[in-house]
Amino acid sequence: MKNGFFNVLSVAEFIDRLRDFSPLPVETAQGTDIDGRVLAEDVIAPEDLPLAHRSCMDGYALRARDVFGASESNPAYLESVGAVRIETPAGFSISPGECASIVTGGILPEGADAVIMVEHTEPLGAGTIEMRKSLAPHDNVMLRGEDASLGKVALAAGTLIRPQEAGLLAALGMERVQVHARPRVGILSTGDELVPVSHTPRVGQVRDVNSTTLGCCVRRAGAVPTLYGLVEDDVDSLEAALRGALEANDVVLLSGGSSVGTSDLTVAAMQRLEGLKIVNHGVAISPGKPLILGRQGNKAVWGLPGQVASAQVVMFVLGAPFLRYLAGETAAFDQSLWPARRARLGRNIASKPGREDYVRVHLRAASGEGAGQKDPACLPVAEPVQGKSGLLKTLILSHGVIRIPSHSEGVYEGTDVDVLLF
Amino acid sequence: MKNGFFNVLSVAEFIDRLRDFSPLPVETAQGTDIDGRVLAEDVIAPEDLPLAHRSCMDGYALRARDVFGASESNPAYLESVGAVRIETPAGFSISPGECASIVTGGILPEGADAVIMVEHTEPLGAGTIEMRKSLAPHDNVMLRGEDASLGKVALAAGTLIRPQEAGLLAALGMERVQVHARPRVGILSTGDELVPVSHTPRVGQVRDVNSTTLGCCVRRAGAVPTLYGLVEDDVDSLEAALRGALEANDVVLLSGGSSVGTSDLTVAAMQRLEGLKIVNHGVAISPGKPLILGRQGNKAVWGLPGQVASAQVVMFVLGAPFLRYLAGETAAFDQSLWPARRARLGRNIASKPGREDYVRVHLRAASGEGAGQKDPACLPVAEPVQGKSGLLKTLILSHGVIRIPSHSEGVYEGTDVDVLLF
Repeated sequence: MKNGFFNVLSVAEFIDRLRDFSPLPVETAQGTDIDGRVLAEDVIAPEDLPLAHRSCMDGYALRARDVFGASESNPAYLESVGAVRIETPAGFSISPGECASIVTGGILPEGADAVIMVEHTEPLGAGTIEMRKSLAPHDNVMLRGEDASLGKVALAAGTLIRPQEAGLLAALGMERVQVHARPRVGILSTGDELVPVSHTPRVGQVRDVNSTTLGCCVRRAGAVPTLYGLVEDDVDSLEAALRGALEANDVVLLSGGSSVGTSDLTVAAMQRLEGLKIVNHGVAISPGKPLILGRQGNKAVWGLPGQVASAQVVMFVLGAPFLRYLAGETAAFDQSLWPARRARLGRNIASKPGREDYVRVHLRAASGEGAGQKDPACLPVAEPVQGKSGLLKTLILSHGVIRIPSHSEGVYEGTDVDVLLF
Repeated sequence: MKNGFFNVLSVAEFIDRLRDFSPLPVETAQGTDIDGRVLAEDVIAPEDLPLAHRSCMDGYALRARDVFGASESNPAYLESVGAVRIETPAGFSISPGECASIVTGGILPEGADAVIMVEHTEPLGAGTIEMRKSLAPHDNVMLRGEDASLGKVALAAGTLIRPQEAGLLAALGMERVQVHARPRVGILSTGDELVPVSHTPRVGQVRDVNSTTLGCCVRRAGAVPTLYGLVEDDVDSLEAALRGALEANDVVLLSGGSSVGTSDLTVAAMQRLEGLKIVNHGVAISPGKPLILGRQGNKAVWGLPGQVASAQVVMFVLGAPFLRYLAGETAAFDQSLWPARRARLGRNIASKPGREDYVRVHLRAASGEGAGQKDPACLPVAEPVQGKSGLLKTLILSHGVIRIPSHSEGVYEGTDVDVLLF
């Protein structure tokens, strides 16, 4: 309890502290840069989409009641009164017993309420068309306002924009939208044994790996990393570096200074910053327990473990979701929708209750019966990757991690598990 | 068979044609920009990593044979002869019966072959340390060369770079690496009813949605989109636009011109380009069947369906993997590692044999027994999203798609399925 402080939180409690931060301010985004962003305000449809009833098919627009009960053996017969081209509304309407040829996307003429596919029709000459299928009103028709309705919310604030949401915004003529800013993230490393990547280490020294891995993790989370490089392992240098990075960023990641042996300096340097509060020191997670979180206003300082595997797992499980949360994704911490693969555990895993374990696993195709046929019910096998957490090898061999909840004493071989993909 | 050409391939045959293309040329990448790229050449380790045996723990370096069989009830006693700091090798060696305190990352002194965790020791005064655990040689030691070995392949050509591979490259001092270029992708839309996003459509017109959605899909695949906007729906305009886009890009996506009704123009325009060969017209996939693929040297032209849902599904299932393949990911078409969530199908789905169906589904948490406890065996429910494929709504409501193989007549409610996440 040096500095009177080693306050280990459960993962759920730690996430609650992260949720106390506010999503970042609003900015305008446009073009394909909106993909992956989160809407900061409701988008109200300025018009109906579609603007009018449109056909989903190539076929004939008609009144559904005119073909009720029609079939191959009992067709109906309608008179074609025209053709609807795609870009201009028809200049005529459809009366009982009439139809009009129409192309996909064409606007239904007045009077028509359904479209029959061309495959279910046969022109008999002299404008008479045989109809071999029964239809209900609105069959094969996109209704006016079905995608978005004038004056109503088309996409709500908080919506994550994917290509399809970007498409809806384009369809509504929204070239610019208000989204939450991407978090700016400053990355620092500390540790007397570290040298920059460009240097040749002497025996006893190692190159700074974490700046690069964390920078990649930050980019993957849709945030903007700035690498500040190495900081001297003394409190004055750390204080100055943290202060500078915190001024220019929303989040600062400092790796190397969070194990109990070397954390005092980090905590001391953080405590020198005006208005910075140490939220916790320690999370019941493995690897990654000696995690420090500091808060200054709405800015965050993370003191990450120096061991690369620990740093990366903490970033994956808590850091990247936090960055997505700041960018407006309120559900960012909910693992149930993270990219994953279901797999069958290949070996027993023991776990210490009281902490969440994230076990690195390698996926391999199942062998034996069913596997050759690519039986979709045949799950891949998840093999735990053993090895020392200071090595990169265990991360490189892994496809992802499985979560063992804090109440669990382990998971048996043969259990179905979700592998959260790195 | 207009233009003598409507050659429907199975999805597997189509992917074989895509594999005939070559991955793109090599370029140099650096910093966090290497994440998601694929190595174009083997990376040979210029040194051992670690450079020397290093401790994984805070504890004592010793000779494992000196504590063989040691336990709480039967401890061993060693004499401490020094302390190893992290950044400098010890100036002494360990003889039988001796040990030295060491920190995580510290270099083992000559003679030591294992490290005992400090938690399993007790200093008794006058330099004597009680050792309460048996060790094997190399316990808690990262061995010299364990991550990478001087002169050997550290990462092979074809490796996809994730944060951990980027970390290994940093650890080896590789600031720049040779990777395959990101594909440059030109995007064109055609269709007389289309207007640019910035325009106000009259009834009968719709805004160009596909340029935006496809642009987002291209970015997600790690490629570089250029949006060329709308092209007049005539063969001369199409030819000129295709020629220009193809000169400046590796791939051109043309949407709107591939349904049988409007595809002739696209095919005719493509056939006017020197050396361009139409590889196929049609793939046994739903949605997306009327897909056209043209090839000019190692450049590709895709004629995508105009319906937004069809265009996006084809991009997701075939287009984005093709872009990743061009960027060097040889396994890009293997769906078994695509991000997914396992789910239980909420309703029967019928499918027409002879084509691969991709059915859009919405995921919801399971209700009932087990669900409340977040039982990991309790899968979410995948509900097929019904609706017309010209609408954006079905895509917006969907979390992803499930694949129904071409030999299948459907999937029953209650079956476990992999939902490929959009």
